[in-house]
Amino acid sequence: MFIQIFGTGGTLDKLYHDALSDYQIGEPMAGELLEQGRVSIGYAVESLIRKDSLELDDADRQLIHDKVAACPYEHVLITHGTDTMTVTGACLEDIQGKVIVLTGAMQPARFRDSDALFNLGLAVGALNTLGHGVYIAMSGRVFPADQVKKNRLAGRFEST
Amino acid sequence: MFIQIFGTGGTLDKLYHDALSDYQIGEPMAGELLEQGRVSIGYAVESLIRKDSLELDDADRQLIHDKVAACPYEHVLITHGTDTMTVTGACLEDIQGKVIVLTGAMQPARFRDSDALFNLGLAVGALNTLGHGVYIAMSGRVFPADQVKKNRLAGRFEST
Amino acid sequence: MFIQIFGTGGTLDKLYHDALSDYQIGEPMAGELLEQGRVSIGYAVESLIRKDSLELDDADRQLIHDKVAACPYEHVLITHGTDTMTVTGACLEDIQGKVIVLTGAMQPARFRDSDALFNLGLAVGALNTLGHGVYIAMSGRVFPADQVKKNRLAGRFEST
Amino acid sequence: MFIQIFGTGGTLDKLYHDALSDYQIGEPMAGELLEQGRVSIGYAVESLIRKDSLELDDADRQLIHDKVAACPYEHVLITHGTDTMTVTGACLEDIQGKVIVLTGAMQPARFRDSDALFNLGLAVGALNTLGHGVYIAMSGRVFPADQVKKNRLAGRFEST
Repeated sequence: MFIQIFGTGGTLDKLYHDALSDYQIGEPMAGELLEQGRVSIGYAVESLIRKDSLELDDADRQLIHDKVAACPYEHVLITHGTDTMTVTGACLEDIQGKVIVLTGAMQPARFRDSDALFNLGLAVGALNTLGHGVYIAMSGRVFPADQVKKNRLAGRFEST
Repeated sequence: MFIQIFGTGGTLDKLYHDALSDYQIGEPMAGELLEQGRVSIGYAVESLIRKDSLELDDADRQLIHDKVAACPYEHVLITHGTDTMTVTGACLEDIQGKVIVLTGAMQPARFRDSDALFNLGLAVGALNTLGHGVYIAMSGRVFPADQVKKNRLAGRFEST
Repeated sequence: MFIQIFGTGGTLDKLYHDALSDYQIGEPMAGELLEQGRVSIGYAVESLIRKDSLELDDADRQLIHDKVAACPYEHVLITHGTDTMTVTGACLEDIQGKVIVLTGAMQPARFRDSDALFNLGLAVGALNTLGHGVYIAMSGRVFPADQVKKNRLAGRFEST
Repeated sequence: MFIQIFGTGGTLDKLYHDALSDYQIGEPMAGELLEQGRVSIGYAVESLIRKDSLELDDADRQLIHDKVAACPYEHVLITHGTDTMTVTGACLEDIQGKVIVLTGAMQPARFRDSDALFNLGLAVGALNTLGHGVYIAMSGRVFPADQVKKNRLAGRFEST
């Protein structure tokens, strides 16, 4: 198994710039997290977009769609902001012949107490075992992408 | 889905005792790791044994077997030392009607750079998606428990 | 030695609220950091203000001044945003009979790679050894508060 | 100020070798810790010995003594196991014209909850402010090296 990882931004990749007194979205953390996970599988990481997912527009989603569709690998992992993860998931439903898993984080990966490393593990577990389709791996669960919503208040993903 | 977690010791749970100038195996870390993963699934953690897996004997494996067999839940996660994880996995092959996933860590969960959190995510991803059987989730992969070995020198699990 | 700690906010105490997609200043982290430092000295932590230091106004500084002046302990540690730490330091110069050390962080204490824990250690080292006066402990150095400025571009404190 | 750091081993530098199922003392962590502390002071790190401090012998202490005495810098920081830190401190009392601070850790620096980063900050705070002499910086306090003992049971350093 070889995993193509596409980074699209979101909380997972947020860092803090002291000189701006603000957070920004940095380079994808997915590669570092897989290294920490001591994975023996091959993977490549490509940064497509660096936005909060509330700011993603149609052109951004078209780019994500086209990159996934054109990717030569069967297994695709997308790191994504949580607020519109299901919207992007819906855009990818027409892509055939691939296992596509989206994940993200409620706390930036650079935080000591972040869920990012767990979520990457969860997503890689799903990629190991699932057939073709689009899935969301969050909150310790793996959902078909069209059967899940984010409960923003409760801070978790739930079945629809 | 409800996950019954059994802790059996191993590197994952190692802590450091200054007064002994030595490491010891502490209480199972699995619950804290699932909290960090912000899981919305239910789970219970029970500590069965606190040993390096090289020190597990037949009586220990019988205990693990009996506890898993008697457990009322379908989904079972076992945290275990890596050196004899496959031996324990083989002992559980006769148990019917359960999804059993073993995982562990190459570095203690208390280390900043530990693979423990990733591996727990990987195992929970496998529990979400797999049918009945015994599996090992390590090195970013999910293996049937009878088709994997640890390559101690390389520090990873591989297909046999 | 007993240390009275006053929290005034700043980067050190920033946490991330997923539901807001934004960072906020939380309760003071100083107590947790001193626990991690396994200190055997006594201390108390009181939260005075929770602001970015760029937003502190004259009334805030008057409050800090009055609290420090009224504090019954000789040793006072103030956690503070870095951008106007020297301004607050200047306001405290008239207070007699106390060792006052201000510190903060370039990265939130909740980050894995934060300088917060080091800076608290630096400040406590200064409190152990210095005579009465107002000091700033940042960038691995201890400065008299009236002989230091922040170099925002370089991300460090320097002698004036 | 320029700080010469000598690493002598101890808990602070312990890492975990999965292939040995055991901990070993690695390269000095002091440089990484000072980087995390965003220090603007210059420093050099030299590894002299990599032992648990209970295993240090007279030849080791002679080496430490000679290296410190021959060092061209006024400020010297020694990272050291805690169990015999005071013994080594006593050996250095005859060295003139230097500020020498010993520190270490109760938990390895690689642990998430380690006191190592705080203790390095504490030691650097002491180096910034103290006159010539030999000191031990532990437990949130800075002691003259001949007026302190480790209370192993309580896990802290105390005045004699």
